[in-house]
Amino acid sequence: MGFEEDPIPRTVEWRDGAVRLIDQRRLPGRLAFIDCRTVAELCEAISSLAVRGAPALGAAGGYGIALACRLAVVGGSGGGRGDPAPPAGGWGDPAPAAAGRPAPAAAVARAAGEAARQLVATRPTAVNLAWGVRQVLATVEAAVAAGSTAEDVGRVALEEADRLAEQDVTDNRALGRHGSGLVPHGARVLTHCNAGALACVGYGTALGVIRAAAEAGKAPRVWVDETRPVLQGARLTAWELDRLGIAATLVADVMAGSLMASGDVDLVVVGADRVAANGDVANKIGTYSLAVLAAHHGVPFYVAAPTSTVDLATPTGAAIPVEERSPDEVRRVGGATLAPEGFAALNRAFDVTPAELVTAIVTELGLARPPYGKSLRRLVEAAPHRLPLRDR
Amino acid sequence: MGFEEDPIPRTVEWRDGAVRLIDQRRLPGRLAFIDCRTVAELCEAISSLAVRGAPALGAAGGYGIALACRLAVVGGSGGGRGDPAPPAGGWGDPAPAAAGRPAPAAAVARAAGEAARQLVATRPTAVNLAWGVRQVLATVEAAVAAGSTAEDVGRVALEEADRLAEQDVTDNRALGRHGSGLVPHGARVLTHCNAGALACVGYGTALGVIRAAAEAGKAPRVWVDETRPVLQGARLTAWELDRLGIAATLVADVMAGSLMASGDVDLVVVGADRVAANGDVANKIGTYSLAVLAAHHGVPFYVAAPTSTVDLATPTGAAIPVEERSPDEVRRVGGATLAPEGFAALNRAFDVTPAELVTAIVTELGLARPPYGKSLRRLVEAAPHRLPLRDR
Repeated sequence: MGFEEDPIPRTVEWRDGAVRLIDQRRLPGRLAFIDCRTVAELCEAISSLAVRGAPALGAAGGYGIALACRLAVVGGSGGGRGDPAPPAGGWGDPAPAAAGRPAPAAAVARAAGEAARQLVATRPTAVNLAWGVRQVLATVEAAVAAGSTAEDVGRVALEEADRLAEQDVTDNRALGRHGSGLVPHGARVLTHCNAGALACVGYGTALGVIRAAAEAGKAPRVWVDETRPVLQGARLTAWELDRLGIAATLVADVMAGSLMASGDVDLVVVGADRVAANGDVANKIGTYSLAVLAAHHGVPFYVAAPTSTVDLATPTGAAIPVEERSPDEVRRVGGATLAPEGFAALNRAFDVTPAELVTAIVTELGLARPPYGKSLRRLVEAAPHRLPLRDR
Repeated sequence: MGFEEDPIPRTVEWRDGAVRLIDQRRLPGRLAFIDCRTVAELCEAISSLAVRGAPALGAAGGYGIALACRLAVVGGSGGGRGDPAPPAGGWGDPAPAAAGRPAPAAAVARAAGEAARQLVATRPTAVNLAWGVRQVLATVEAAVAAGSTAEDVGRVALEEADRLAEQDVTDNRALGRHGSGLVPHGARVLTHCNAGALACVGYGTALGVIRAAAEAGKAPRVWVDETRPVLQGARLTAWELDRLGIAATLVADVMAGSLMASGDVDLVVVGADRVAANGDVANKIGTYSLAVLAAHHGVPFYVAAPTSTVDLATPTGAAIPVEERSPDEVRRVGGATLAPEGFAALNRAFDVTPAELVTAIVTELGLARPPYGKSLRRLVEAAPHRLPLRDR
């Protein structure tokens, strides 16, 4: 598992004028990619969970702004689904092909602002999406204010999006190293949903901790919660661990309590979609139940999240919007309808775990311990390149 | 919802010399029946969950002994899968058709004993299966000891199996009435797995409580846990509630914690596969997690189980064998494989909830409250027709 030969390709990247994503809806059966050539295509990919996971959404959001800028420069609107695809060619080309008269920089900024609104509306809970969008948008606005040309505005947008994506991988490796210290040798680690490379640009957060522990020779063994209804655990986390050669066993979500009661879980580590200023954690539905069970059994419960997931503007978990998704995700699985036709179903996609159930929060800058109000603020304020608080 | 017009047919009954079962593997898509004409066929139906649920297994076990007796009398072995089916015709016929020389009563008793061993081995956790088998076997042995003919032995076996089946429905209605008093008007009730008519001969235990509350005009609303991996909640409980016209909403198992945290659950009621003498409860995997969550949120947690599910010979939950089933039930659902090919999976089918997390146990003879050691013994010893303790 060397750094140079990652067995999992980048989840999100810029390729030939498009945002290229691993299509996670097709895993584990097939490793396929989709190229989003319009902002609408990217929004659809986000809504349908082709790309998901808070840090991955941050990178996708950043690239979405870069895409909107490119389309404004080359003449595409980036809005409607039926827009003709722009000509291929990376922003790095010395002279990107421009269709018709060059757009003024202000028009590029307007397109970026409109794309930001569309992108942020796709998923309300994960704060990284808005964070990535705003990081790149701020760069765009600064370039426009500095009198840059439209092309230069587009170029710096892509550079900033690329920087965020690279930073994600660097941060996750650092996070993994910090978290690895929490993993005893041979630990049985339970994780929920997918907070792996597929939830990020690469390496992973919760799985990054496990991966770093494996790289440190600690031979962790993983219990993989299948994570109904969308089965990110069974499909994605299992696929990653399989590729990484880390020992793992799939269980239905209902088995976690029994595993803890029989002494088969040494620690729980999960990711986060948003961490409030007080340390309350929004994450995939089912996380809260695990935290209650872990507390009941005296099992440490860790949250792995980069500082970009910490939202100091959200005072507590009560202020985090919890997305409800289609009831069909509950009624159906693998193409089969499980329940009687038309039976009512509820599909809360996230839950909020109160800070008092969280043993520590692992970030790229180190561990936050209770009281989180202080420890999180200290870490977030130490994060390089972060936007001023008023912009977050 | 009158008593006379049950919208759910009997789960287990004797029909034309066979044990007729609702094939629960095909619900909710289709209401189909299977006729088991040999003990091997019945064992296969039990193993593959065509029939499941502790009280239903009790009735199926009882009928299995009656079936073995019949086959011994009419000449079938009741053992191998390839045995020719015996001629149709109920035991109630004045002169059942016997193939060849009539078997001696002792041979019938031997066949019944062999069938008992096969039946009890199919599912280790549910105590009712062994209970139903032993009830009918004891009748057989008593009849043989009293010098009955082979035909008479077969006849009393079937009469006893029929009596147990009828008693199940009567008991469940009584259990429902006792439990209904625990359900406030308009209560939001969460249940797990299926402890309905389909888990019994009829009416249900946990769903019987909900049904009795509905019949009493209390308008309960039900949260139906889908209950991975076999999805008895999504498939069976949802189907029953739909037929009964009781308001219900399906949720993934992971959502229970969130529902309790948001104040949307007033009580939990589940069935049981075995209740130990001290009140520890073995039930479908996931029950224990619900009990921990309920205790954490101050939500009452009730277990609905007839006294036949209470096993005074099992001192605590630690002595209850927990069945592990095929990992494929976790790796697959609805015909689709979810996880990567060959990925390891664990499939514990049950868990044990310690008595201290159980608010009350509802039986057909009334409520057991803590301390359960005393209250359960009192109820079990008051149960009519029960076998002496040494035989349990």
